[in-house]
Amino acid sequence: MTRKVTFGLANSLDNRIARGDHSYDWLVWDDEVAKISADFFRTIDTVIMGRKTYEVALAAGAWPSTPGIRNYVLSRTLAQGSDTRVEIVNEDGVEFLRRLKQQPGKGICVMGGGELAKPLLEAGLIDELGLNIQPIILGDGIPLFHPMRSPIALERLECRPLANGSVYILYRVKR
Amino acid sequence: MTRKVTFGLANSLDNRIARGDHSYDWLVWDDEVAKISADFFRTIDTVIMGRKTYEVALAAGAWPSTPGIRNYVLSRTLAQGSDTRVEIVNEDGVEFLRRLKQQPGKGICVMGGGELAKPLLEAGLIDELGLNIQPIILGDGIPLFHPMRSPIALERLECRPLANGSVYILYRVKR
Repeated sequence: MTRKVTFGLANSLDNRIARGDHSYDWLVWDDEVAKISADFFRTIDTVIMGRKTYEVALAAGAWPSTPGIRNYVLSRTLAQGSDTRVEIVNEDGVEFLRRLKQQPGKGICVMGGGELAKPLLEAGLIDELGLNIQPIILGDGIPLFHPMRSPIALERLECRPLANGSVYILYRVKR
Repeated sequence: MTRKVTFGLANSLDNRIARGDHSYDWLVWDDEVAKISADFFRTIDTVIMGRKTYEVALAAGAWPSTPGIRNYVLSRTLAQGSDTRVEIVNEDGVEFLRRLKQQPGKGICVMGGGELAKPLLEAGLIDELGLNIQPIILGDGIPLFHPMRSPIALERLECRPLANGSVYILYRVKR
């Protein structure tokens, strides 16, 4: 039995996670979304993010950390610095996550970042995918899904239309 | 009061309407989808499609025509041929649809084809957007949404999780 890995984020209807300049002011955050997020965070003890997601969160002052959660930032260029909230991992994401999954613990969240998610999805390391689809066609920006080697079949576990106009859908990755 | 224009289709979770070779065997079609489609077709009397969608439908033998519906194929290269089920329109899609919207009649369906939909969305001629999001990440293929000049805000009118695992969402384009 390995730990469950969830890739969770919000995206536009046209598959974007941010504008080209990394802005995400078009994302709606309210009590209903906060509750979904808080319920999910109680099931995990580990967050993995890429360097870009980390830097965007730092710049926005919107640090996604929660007490009791260990935060790993995957980066080939960053060195462990003075930010004690995160541990920098200078290692291939696939190998790192594969090892982490085998260790005892609660769930693991892969946060934001289609570039980070792509090899993890291809390696079959993501178990669930939670999308909060926003009611907007962004028109351009940073894609959520990058081209992948082969299709990935999903099973819908949950579908919840939110009061703010978004739709939250949780999928299980089929093996 | 102009006629309502609906852009409707099925897509993968990663924003693809077909594989690179135009195949769409991954689309689920069942009684529940057929009912949504039949209910919608009762509200329209006109279908507009691009040349590629037309050729794919012809090749598949899956002609989407319904009695009482007028089918227009927008193409700069095709000439009116022997296929009396369709009228070939050698005209800019935006100008053609703008004129059609002003004429009396029932609703108009823009069928398949992100390339056709892009200028129509940018010109503000699409009123509603109905997506049947399939439970699959296709990994590659023909995109539904192409880059657009500016964001398009949507209002969710309906969200229906289907028994087959898809999610049908109907949006109104905000002005």
